[in-house]
This record gives sequence, structure tokens and C-alpha cells, in this order.
Amino acid sequence: MQATTGRLRLGVVGLGRLGKRHAENLAYRVPGASLVAACSPLEEERAWARETLPEPRLYADYADLLADRDVDAVWLVTPSSLHAQQIIDALRAGKHVFCEKPLSLDLAECERVLAEAARYPHLQATIGFMRRFDPSYKDAFDKIEAGKIGRPFLVRSQTTDKNDVDGFFVRFSETSGGIFLDCTVHDIDVARWLLGKPRAKRVFAAGAVALHEGLREFGDVDNGVAICEFEDGKLAMFYASRTQAHGNDTHSEVIGTAGALAIGHNPRANRVDIYDATGIRNECTPNFFDRFEDAFLHEARAFVAAVQGGAASNAQAGATLADALEATRIGMALRQSLQSGEAVTL
Amino acid sequence: MQATTGRLRLGVVGLGRLGKRHAENLAYRVPGASLVAACSPLEEERAWARETLPEPRLYADYADLLADRDVDAVWLVTPSSLHAQQIIDALRAGKHVFCEKPLSLDLAECERVLAEAARYPHLQATIGFMRRFDPSYKDAFDKIEAGKIGRPFLVRSQTTDKNDVDGFFVRFSETSGGIFLDCTVHDIDVARWLLGKPRAKRVFAAGAVALHEGLREFGDVDNGVAICEFEDGKLAMFYASRTQAHGNDTHSEVIGTAGALAIGHNPRANRVDIYDATGIRNECTPNFFDRFEDAFLHEARAFVAAVQGGAASNAQAGATLADALEATRIGMALRQSLQSGEAVTL
Amino acid sequence: MQATTGRLRLGVVGLGRLGKRHAENLAYRVPGASLVAACSPLEEERAWARETLPEPRLYADYADLLADRDVDAVWLVTPSSLHAQQIIDALRAGKHVFCEKPLSLDLAECERVLAEAARYPHLQATIGFMRRFDPSYKDAFDKIEAGKIGRPFLVRSQTTDKNDVDGFFVRFSETSGGIFLDCTVHDIDVARWLLGKPRAKRVFAAGAVALHEGLREFGDVDNGVAICEFEDGKLAMFYASRTQAHGNDTHSEVIGTAGALAIGHNPRANRVDIYDATGIRNECTPNFFDRFEDAFLHEARAFVAAVQGGAASNAQAGATLADALEATRIGMALRQSLQSGEAVTL
Amino acid sequence: MQATTGRLRLGVVGLGRLGKRHAENLAYRVPGASLVAACSPLEEERAWARETLPEPRLYADYADLLADRDVDAVWLVTPSSLHAQQIIDALRAGKHVFCEKPLSLDLAECERVLAEAARYPHLQATIGFMRRFDPSYKDAFDKIEAGKIGRPFLVRSQTTDKNDVDGFFVRFSETSGGIFLDCTVHDIDVARWLLGKPRAKRVFAAGAVALHEGLREFGDVDNGVAICEFEDGKLAMFYASRTQAHGNDTHSEVIGTAGALAIGHNPRANRVDIYDATGIRNECTPNFFDRFEDAFLHEARAFVAAVQGGAASNAQAGATLADALEATRIGMALRQSLQSGEAVTL
Repeated sequence: MQATTGRLRLGVVGLGRLGKRHAENLAYRVPGASLVAACSPLEEERAWARETLPEPRLYADYADLLADRDVDAVWLVTPSSLHAQQIIDALRAGKHVFCEKPLSLDLAECERVLAEAARYPHLQATIGFMRRFDPSYKDAFDKIEAGKIGRPFLVRSQTTDKNDVDGFFVRFSETSGGIFLDCTVHDIDVARWLLGKPRAKRVFAAGAVALHEGLREFGDVDNGVAICEFEDGKLAMFYASRTQAHGNDTHSEVIGTAGALAIGHNPRANRVDIYDATGIRNECTPNFFDRFEDAFLHEARAFVAAVQGGAASNAQAGATLADALEATRIGMALRQSLQSGEAVTL
Repeated sequence: MQATTGRLRLGVVGLGRLGKRHAENLAYRVPGASLVAACSPLEEERAWARETLPEPRLYADYADLLADRDVDAVWLVTPSSLHAQQIIDALRAGKHVFCEKPLSLDLAECERVLAEAARYPHLQATIGFMRRFDPSYKDAFDKIEAGKIGRPFLVRSQTTDKNDVDGFFVRFSETSGGIFLDCTVHDIDVARWLLGKPRAKRVFAAGAVALHEGLREFGDVDNGVAICEFEDGKLAMFYASRTQAHGNDTHSEVIGTAGALAIGHNPRANRVDIYDATGIRNECTPNFFDRFEDAFLHEARAFVAAVQGGAASNAQAGATLADALEATRIGMALRQSLQSGEAVTL
Repeated sequence: MQATTGRLRLGVVGLGRLGKRHAENLAYRVPGASLVAACSPLEEERAWARETLPEPRLYADYADLLADRDVDAVWLVTPSSLHAQQIIDALRAGKHVFCEKPLSLDLAECERVLAEAARYPHLQATIGFMRRFDPSYKDAFDKIEAGKIGRPFLVRSQTTDKNDVDGFFVRFSETSGGIFLDCTVHDIDVARWLLGKPRAKRVFAAGAVALHEGLREFGDVDNGVAICEFEDGKLAMFYASRTQAHGNDTHSEVIGTAGALAIGHNPRANRVDIYDATGIRNECTPNFFDRFEDAFLHEARAFVAAVQGGAASNAQAGATLADALEATRIGMALRQSLQSGEAVTL
Repeated sequence: MQATTGRLRLGVVGLGRLGKRHAENLAYRVPGASLVAACSPLEEERAWARETLPEPRLYADYADLLADRDVDAVWLVTPSSLHAQQIIDALRAGKHVFCEKPLSLDLAECERVLAEAARYPHLQATIGFMRRFDPSYKDAFDKIEAGKIGRPFLVRSQTTDKNDVDGFFVRFSETSGGIFLDCTVHDIDVARWLLGKPRAKRVFAAGAVALHEGLREFGDVDNGVAICEFEDGKLAMFYASRTQAHGNDTHSEVIGTAGALAIGHNPRANRVDIYDATGIRNECTPNFFDRFEDAFLHEARAFVAAVQGGAASNAQAGATLADALEATRIGMALRQSLQSGEAVTL
């Protein structure tokens, strides 16, 4: 870690559960970073920042934070519908920007952000697909790069949540974009990343409402399956679920011509096995928040290193705006296929 | 086991590798069964039978075996293209019949066999989807029946073979019907069996040629993925591969509203773990023949028990002709989807 | 398998639960074997044999079976206290003999059997340490022979039973010889077999009464741990338990200079994993009977093959009387150590 | 996390590999802590501190750090032979003290430290048995406390290192105290902690030199096994090794009257499984440093919380001096048993 000079000065925007985690990481655990500002419209969240973070300047208004000349980069953990404009505003204010996924659920808006960002090539703009920074996903990526499984041609990937009896996501369905844009978008990014960023050419999706009937009015499902064909003969299969009994089970497989890798096959909560009258078992990660605790940290470190390292290190900085656009494009095609019952050509 | 009276007298037809195994099971390991006859056009195979089996009557010609009045049932392990007519001939000769999968790759021919069989309701006619008799698949079936995972609504199932560098299956592609009819047909049967025999309504398939370019001329692939939607909101995802590095990896998952079951997730060859400089590993089952050794035996026992037990035990006898027809119908739709790039409605 | 000529004609003695299994294996599943006779003092067990086995000659008295000239070999599944004399009687009657473990709990008696057997070098005499015939143990043995783990120098092995709430073994403690002679004797044989049959030089044992207080009056424990030092710097650690919650957990590890092997680390009942609110689990083998079903069969096949193959195949025939003597010797030293609290030198 | 007031001001002493890790944790990742000073006799290590840590005061001499009035607590990561006196000096200087294990290899010296510490009951003195703070070990501890496995009565625990071809530990053997005092001491502490801190009454140990012949001159071994009997009928089995092929394999089991827990059974490096021609495998943690990365952090947090929380939180602060004394006492008895071949009564 570095001492106090030459640090990247960050401002975090949004201090909900995930925002708090990012804020703590940036404040205490990222070499080269100083969390100098935080922004939330809620006094309660600002109070938390006042007590917990190392004397950040606090803002209720995003525009005020952007006006702070001693902020080099903003870290957006805000509602999805705000992302696109907030990114544009940050770039215009001359600040690097990290933004939680998704970029936008509107393709035109995605394009608009990309166009704007093209005007600021010296600024880093990264979308938070944190799975790329999970140590196990990273290890798989490196093994693939090293040729350990030959040529990778198929990814199977899933994002499945423990059933939420409160059904928060049902009410959230209208704005989340549905299960594929909310959950599978991560798997889409993983598949493209591990397969060498191929372009999708055709998708098909289907789904079931296993438990949450309320989703039907939004054309959404609580379990979705999909196939994605890429242009160079590569393939992906996706599964998303809101109704798992055992926990958050996020795992992926990459199959190559000379071997395969599975990442997270058993979503173990820890290294403990329990032997009792029901057999031998392990408990599972309850949610993505616990599963990807390390990934959020590594993501922050990579962003800061990328900004400080310049163009050479950009490759390791995470998903680009173009990656995010492509993930949205595929996710929307999946939704369209789910609703039409037809394969959708991109 | 029973002693010598009241045994079901069987004749095995076809003595290739799999036929030999069935013959030995029927001869020595199935209570209530007597293997009294064997049929093969090859002298070499009949010689094997003469040395190995307990004094069976040997036939070079199937018609001669059917004429043997002291044969109660025939056990067909013959080339797929012969199955349909041989089943019909056996039924007409008044014999129960067990036939290896597939029933036929031609839907009209399947229908013809069903129509004929309807005339002989007192005769057992079973198609050999042996996976139903694997102890682990059976355990999963029983747990589902007992309600342990709530209502099952999604099956994910795969049949993946260790890469055959000789590429036997490439030359075999024209007659095998392609990867979905040759391999996935097992997964289709498993899915229908575990989900309560729903009817398929729509399928989509895609594929890749990872290693065996020769398949392209047959419109076949060496890796195929598929989705199948059933009428009552149930779903299945399938994966078939000819190119795995680690072995034959046949596994399935059933996901229900209150839990899930995975069958064969790690295709362990045995109970040994090897600790060395590469980590901790287990070897894998090299082929379906070893993986399903027990299943073939249990299948034979169930068939014999079903014949001897009468109608009451038919439910446990294995896949019916109707099940086989439905598996072929879905498999053909998958092939059609693979070739057209469109979803296919059944 | 062979047909009907040149078969080894066997008589099974003792038709309790384990005797029945051996009898069925010998009758129906062992190439080259004919089960021609069975002996039990209980009419009920002879009735079972009459109904189940292929027309064996039935005897109530062991002497009568030994007088049967058409019996080539006897298979003893009788109470332990009878083993030694029954083996001697069988050898004197000119019959090969297989006997369930233990040879005897009395060292002098063991020696007497060995002395007698030395007079009949043409007769096979094998003690049933079936673990040597379990496919996984056998695979480990073969890998060691092939040098896969370098020089093996440490075995850790355990025999642990699911807790028997009836506490049958408590009443049985007086005649079983206690936990080390009843359970650990298998692990002792495994250790010697996998380490190249070294001689023990020193042992230490300790134990605990976790649940079954009734054992104290016999100087026995329901959980025992032990260390055994062999003459050439090799080591073994043993654990035996009567009180496991999850099932019969029989497993072993062999540690060598270049790697290690674990056999049966997770005593999975089958290939099913259950995903539910408690996590991911597998059920376990309930008892040794299920765990070693295959081993009993392979053991019978090996014995018959050894008799038929002559001296050359003796090496694969199973534990010799000398192996059994050594296992008893070590087991008794463990009991002595448990009771004295001192290390015992052999 | 807290902001800047009321923090515990720490000085780290010793900046080798492990010292650097502790320093970074204390500097950046422990709420309520400020790393204000660092001490090393090596200019190179102080230079590292100057560049990496947040402006600590740097000392070459431990006495000077103890004279620093703005240091509340010292964190000793120094050579083992210095521990005892440095702890005493810290307490006399009025500072809380955390010290890496071992307390001392000399029992009289251990007693002397305890006697001195008794004079400063208001000061925290903790020995770094970090395994208590590993999340999985902690989870097991909590489950035991909650009664999930009934009454725990047996611990099996091992510390086994990947073979070090350089054989550093051979040269280190004279000062390390040998394998039991260097490695098993962790398992001893784990066993006592998980079993409710029973007192040992008798031990037995044995060992083997598998690869490192140079150890013989020190009476040491590269593989050691041991049994420890505690006063209340509880037991422990230990295994220590310097010669594993697959990695650092530190794991433990706790067996109770109603179930058991295994911690770290497969020392997975991460969540990746590799499928290739050798089977399915996972890589393993290469060394304790990687395995216990999180534990070191939680250990530091717990120490700081304990100091700040006062007596009430002491229970969670880690191993006491008395625990460390008992671990040394048992470890020395193991060494004595190894060398004498006799059981040793404590």
C-alpha cells in the first residue's frame, strides 16, 4: 500500500447497503485511494458516513459533489434509472467514473453514454460487473488465458437467489427489467468475458413462475432459462432463479476443447462440513452480498490501479461501457424471446 | 432369489458389448429369470455365448428364436434400425419384449409399433432407458415422489462423453440421428420421468462443432444445448457433448419449489481421492458402460419382476413405448431447431 | 463366466444376515463356483436356503457337511468363537476354507491354526477382511503398487458405526473382544496391507465412553483412538466409534513421500446431492453391510479364482492366516494399552 | 468502523513477512486501531514501513518504542526466543500486548510471564493462535456452543505443510522445538478451545522421517502423530507433517455425541474445479499464510475490540497466556513421548 501522497480522491454517491460497503472499502482497504467525499439525499445515510468514514465531505446533492474540485473520481451506487445521466454528468465534470450495473435498460440511452464517453478518452468509465474480480472467476480467466482448457466454446452460468418470501423483487419487477436484465446480465458479461468478447447473434429464452404469481402481470418469471449463440460458433446457457431453497447459488462453467473449469459449483458458506443424522452437508452463501465480498474489494482496487496506471492497465479495469451495452442488448433480447416464444436474432 | 421353478425364460438377441452384459445379467444375476436362448448372426458371438452362458439354445436367425416355444420374452440389443420391426415380430409371436433405445428415429414407425402393441395388452413392451434404474436416479425419483423438493418444475440434464479421438460417432452420425437423438434422448426421458411425464410444447436447440469437423456434412454437432418447454409451465435444459476431457459425465438436476436434487454431479469413478502436486482430484467414469453397470442389472430385474407380477407392477417396469415415442418426437424437434435456428412448436 | 464344468463346489456354514449374502453371491454371482451345500443348526435358516438357493444339500451339523465328498471348500460365517476349530476341521477334511474375521481372539489358538494349516499347503485358507476387495481400496492399493504416491509411510484409518440406540454391541462386548478387536482389526489389516505388511513394534491406545455407559464394566469404550508404530519407521493411526450420527463412516488415508490417497472420505450413500434450506448435503451409508456390498462379492470371486488358479494367484486371495494372526496380535496390544494407559511393545 | 477519535494506538514490532501483514491490517483494516509506530532492527524493513504505512514513528530499538507514550499496545512479531521477555517488558511499560505464538518453549519462562501478567490485570495479553479467528473455525465453535453436535468429546486436528525442498525447517529444528512445538501447538490450542479447555493428563507421540534425514540429529521428525487424553474423558488426535505434496492442509474435526463438524477438510485454494484428462480436481492452499489471511485480520480486530470493550469482551480476545502455557506444556510432553517411546503423564 502507498502512504498519503498521490492518492486518487474519490467520492461515493449513494449509501444504501451496497454503497456503504463500497465506501468502507474505498476508505480503508484500497491502496492509493482516499475517500474524500460522500453523497446521499438521506440525512440518515450521511450521518452513517460522518461516524464511519474518515472525515469525508458530505453532500446531499450530486451536482455539489461534482463541483468539488478535490474529487478525482465518482463511485455511483445509485438507483439504476439514474446511472446513464450521472455517468455523463461525471465525465463532463472531468471525473473518472465507476458505476454499478446496469448502465441502462434503454439501448438508446446506453448508446448516448458511449458517445459522450468517446469524447473523454482520458477518463476511466467502468461498469461494476464485480464477478470479474472474484478471485475464483479471476483464476478461471487466467487459466483460460494460459490455454489450460484449449479453446473455450461454451459457458454455462447461473445467478440464482434464495427465495425471498417477502417478494421484494416482485414489486421491483417493473423497474428491474425482469429476471434476465436484473440477474442474467451478470452471466452474460461473464460469458462474453470468458469467451473472448464474442458478439451475440441469436438468443432464445423461456421461463416459469414457480412461486411468485405476482410476476405475471409484468410479463416476468421467477425462473428463467436461456441459450445465446455467438457469432463464432460459441455458445452460452443461462439460468436465473428467485426461488432457490439453499441460498444464493451463483456459478459458472467454461468448457473448452481440452478441459473445463467450474467456478463456485457448491456455493459453500465456509469451510465447515456438518455431520448429522441427515448426512453430511455444508451451508451455503445466503446472498450475493456475502458471496462477492472479496470481489467488491478487488474491483475497487483494480479501478484505482487502472486510473493511476494509465492506459496500459485499462485492460484489467473491469467492464467497459461497450461491455455493458452489449450485456443490456443481449438481456433485452432474452426478455423479448421470453415474451414472444420465438428465437430473437440480434 | 427364487430357485428353479416358474422362471421367466428369456432369449437375448444381439451379443455385442452391451448384449453380452445383458446376457450375463439375465443368466446369473436376475432372480426369476432363465436365459435359455441367444441369437446372433455372428459365429464368434455365438461361440462366446456357448462358453460363457449356462447352455442357451443358440440361433443365428431371429425368426428361429421367435419360433422357440420355450422362450417367454426377447431381449433386443440389436442395431437401432431393426428395433421397430423386431418388436412387432416379437409381440406377434406372443413374447414379452425388452428393446434397447431408441424405439425408432422415424415417428411414423414409432406410431406403428404402438398401434401393434395395443393389440397385445397382456404383453410387456419396454424400451431400455436404463437411467431410470440407476440407484441414484431412482433415489431422486423416490424423494420427489415423497415431496421432498416440493413441486418439481425444472430439469437440467446432460449426457456428455469423453472425447473419442477415433471419432467413431462421426461415421455413425448419419444413422444415429445426430447428437440429440443419440445422446439427449436419455435426458429427455429423464426430464419427463422426473417431472411427471408432461408433454412438450416448444423446443430450441443450438450447437457447436468443437473438434470434429466431419460432423458438419451431416448437419450434426459435437456439442449441443437445448431448452424444452412443457405444457404445464415446466422446463428442461439439455447439454450433450462428444468432446469432454475428463470422462463420461452424465448428470441431472431437478429443481422444485422447496429444494433441488442433483444426481451424479461429480462423475467419480470410485471413492478414491488423489492428493498430489496438482491438488486434490478424483478420477471420472470413462464411459456410460461403467457408469450404468448397476442400472443395467436393476433394469433387467425390474423387467422380469414386472412380467411376473402382472399389471400391478407395470408402473416400475421402465419406459413404455409411448415414453419412447415422446422422447423421439422431442429429439427430432431439437434436431430441426438446431438446423433451422428457429424455435420448434410441437 | 464359465458354464457348468470344473466349478468349485462350496458349502456355506452359517446363514445369518451375512451368511445369507455370502450364500447368494456364491450361488448366483461367482463365476466358477457352485454352491452345493449349506449348513445351519436353525431350521428357519435352512428353510430360507431351500427356497432361495439352487438346490443345495442342507446340513444341521458341520461335521456332516465336512463328510460330504462333493464339497471342495467351506465358507464359514459362524460365531467368532468357533472359527479356529472349524478351520482346523475343514483343513483336516481336505477342504479349502474361507472364514469370516476374526481368526480368533486368542493368540495361542491363532498359532495353533497356523501350525495346522502349514501341514496342508495345497489348501487355501483365507480370512475375510473384505475391505481389501472393495473396488476403491483395491484401486488405492494398485496406485500405491504403481508408485503413484512414492513410498507410503502412514495410514490413517477408521471404522465408525452409526450409533445403535439398542446398544447391541454393549451386550456383545464381552465376546467381541472390545472395540479394537471388533472394529479396528479391519483398519489394522488395511494398514499392513497398504504399507507392505510391516511388523508392529509399539502401540498406544486411548478411549472414551461417549454414550454407552454399560461398556465400562467390560473395560470397553464406544470411541477408541490408537497409534501403531511399525518396525521400518511406518506408522498408523486408528479411530473406531460406535456413536456416529451420520452413518457408517469407514475410511482410510495413505500418505506417501510423493502424494496421498484417501479412500471413502465422504461415505456417500449414492450420487445424489440434496439442496434445501439446511444447505447441500448427501446421505451416508447406514452400515458396513451396504458400504461393502460389492466387496463381499469380489472377495468371493477372488477366493474361487485363487483356488482354481493355483499358487500363482494366491497373492490376490485375501488375508492369510498369518495376516489374521498379526491383526489379532496388534488388536490385543491396543486393548492392553487402553486398559493400562501405557504404550505396549510387541 | 469508527472515525478518528478514541482509537487504540499500536506499535508493531518485527516486520518480517508476517509482521508486514499484521502491520498492514492494523494500519488499514481494523476499526478503532491506529498503527502509530513500528520497530525493526533492519533499515530495509523500516524503509518498507516508511513507504507503506501511514506515517508511523519508526524505531530500531524495542526499548525506544516502549518509551513512546503515545503507544497504547504493542504487537510482537519477533523471533520466538524473544517473546517472553518482550511481553514482560511491554506489560511493565503499561502497554497491552499481542504476541505471536509461541509464548516460550521453556515452561519456567512461561510461568514467569504469567506471574508478571497477574500483576497487570487491566492489560490485555494475548498469544496469537490465529486459527480461533478463522471464520470457519469460528463458525464451528459457535455451532458447538449452540449444542449442534451434543457434547464434543474428540478432536482430530492436523497441521501439515507442503514439502519445502529447501528444508528451511531442518535448520530451524533446533530452535523451533521440533514438529510438535512448532506445528501441533496450533492443533493443541484448537482442541482445548473446542473441547472447553480441558486439562491434559496423558499423551503419546510417534513419528517418522519420510524425506528430511537431517532432522534425525535434532531428535525431530518430518511427520508426527499423537494422542492426547484430557482429564474429563475427552480426547484429541494430532497429525503434523512437513512433507505434503498437495499444499498446506490444516484441518480439524470435532466429534460430539450428536454429530460432528469438519473444518477445512479439502484445503481448496478457491472455488474453481478443473476438469481434465486426470479427472476433476481443485488446487490447494499453498501455505498457512494464504489459508489464514482472513484469520489474521479478524484476530487483530478482536484484540482491538477486546481492549476497547473492557473485561466483558475479553472472552473473545483470543488465547490467554494460560492457554499458551498449556499448549507448550502439552507440546513438550509430546516431544518427550516421541523421544522416549513411552506415554507421558502430565
